Amino acid sequence: MKVLLLFFFLATIIATCQGASHPVVGHHKPGFNCLSWRLTVETNNIRDWAVVPQACVSYVGHYMLDYQYREDAQAVADAAYNYAKSTPLIKDFRNTWIFDLGDTVLSSLPYYAQPDIAFGKIVVNICLLIGTKYNSTKFAIWEMKGIAPAVPGILDLYRKLQSIGYKIVIISGRSESLRAVTIKNLKNLGFTNWEKLILKQTSAKGTTSLVFKEKKRNELIGQGYRIIGNVGDQWSDLLGEHAGYRTFKVPNPMYYD
Amino acid sequence: MKVLLLFFFLATIIATCQGASHPVVGHHKPGFNCLSWRLTVETNNIRDWAVVPQACVSYVGHYMLDYQYREDAQAVADAAYNYAKSTPLIKDFRNTWIFDLGDTVLSSLPYYAQPDIAFGKIVVNICLLIGTKYNSTKFAIWEMKGIAPAVPGILDLYRKLQSIGYKIVIISGRSESLRAVTIKNLKNLGFTNWEKLILKQTSAKGTTSLVFKEKKRNELIGQGYRIIGNVGDQWSDLLGEHAGYRTFKVPNPMYYD
Repeated sequence: MKVLLLFFFLATIIATCQGASHPVVGHHKPGFNCLSWRLTVETNNIRDWAVVPQACVSYVGHYMLDYQYREDAQAVADAAYNYAKSTPLIKDFRNTWIFDLGDTVLSSLPYYAQPDIAFGKIVVNICLLIGTKYNSTKFAIWEMKGIAPAVPGILDLYRKLQSIGYKIVIISGRSESLRAVTIKNLKNLGFTNWEKLILKQTSAKGTTSLVFKEKKRNELIGQGYRIIGNVGDQWSDLLGEHAGYRTFKVPNPMYYD
Repeated sequence: MKVLLLFFFLATIIATCQGASHPVVGHHKPGFNCLSWRLTVETNNIRDWAVVPQACVSYVGHYMLDYQYREDAQAVADAAYNYAKSTPLIKDFRNTWIFDLGDTVLSSLPYYAQPDIAFGKIVVNICLLIGTKYNSTKFAIWEMKGIAPAVPGILDLYRKLQSIGYKIVIISGRSESLRAVTIKNLKNLGFTNWEKLILKQTSAKGTTSLVFKEKKRNELIGQGYRIIGNVGDQWSDLLGEHAGYRTFKVPNPMYYD
């Protein structure tokens, strides 16, 4: 009987480990190409991935901390501003630009670069190799510090959009309970005079990001706002109804939300 | 009077050249980052661009002819197959996978790599620097040869999808008049047993790619097909109604359509 129990225990571990160890690695090639993986992520070809593939943890770290990420984010800001300034606007006060918050305006790069997070480093557990999963408690503690820097290029974009007549609405899945620290963080960086800062009420906690943001945009439309542009680091910011005449995807190979 | 005419002639040239010389280059930085440009294109942040920016012509050529493009295309094929095989299907004969044709199935890389096309090389004209624009007559002559190779990874994906029960529908903006040569080209490469090969009738000539493809997908839905997946190299293949439960963007920094 004991031998049988041991057999089932080990069989369960093996089955669990096989199922969980590489959630985003395809059937193809052992030499994993991290540039291809990043492109596949950015184009929304791979979804619902839990952790950065182990083979790409170091690559993602270098990319995010090096100049290419900054240039990529700047290119998005440039593309957004080029569109914004060349779009003929109806001369009223309804022209609106949506910003997501986390890793679109406020960068969580210092959080993910911490030695104990390290963009999803290897943790030796019963399955031997498994990426560090997102820890919401740990992340909330970091958010409460209110020390996030700005995403490259975005403050400049934010100010320029305001100067040419756009109202700024920030829609974030961040908890309403973090409003005060979020406002302080934003203002310290120079983000001011937004039209609305929409955070997530406890009552909406179970709602997916896509559904929550679509609902909030629908409410804005109902209030008379005209959503011209929309910037976000997740496709869930940019898909769904009333996403904006044009959307702009900020790079983020650190996590999927 | 002659001096006045000359003045207006020169003023018109200067105005035209300033407006047309760099259609996709933003206001930012003279040192243009071609990796950032390619990412911005692939994520649909920049649209309606006429030519590859001059600063990136050589970069695009190297990317397309080197291993990274092949790996990137293979990663898309892998992501598509991983989704296709892990999706629970209703066991009937309606499960359908859409493929675009040009640069999704049949590669036009040999056309764009020709010395006189060279991914939009510099042409010295009155404005001094302007990219080679797409020449539809020249391209049609190349298409009529029926010698396009397959896009990397896609034949394997096509066959595997068929083997796990998907019907394949190819929807292309290519002219109906090229049907015979297209079929010959496809079969020579090993693409066989498609359910439908939908090409563009002369009557639909003025329709944009997005509207044409959406219309054809709506017709498929009306005929009882269930569109599970959709692979294309242009966002116009992948946006609009009934785009598929999941879409997969194949890289293409050569042109926008």
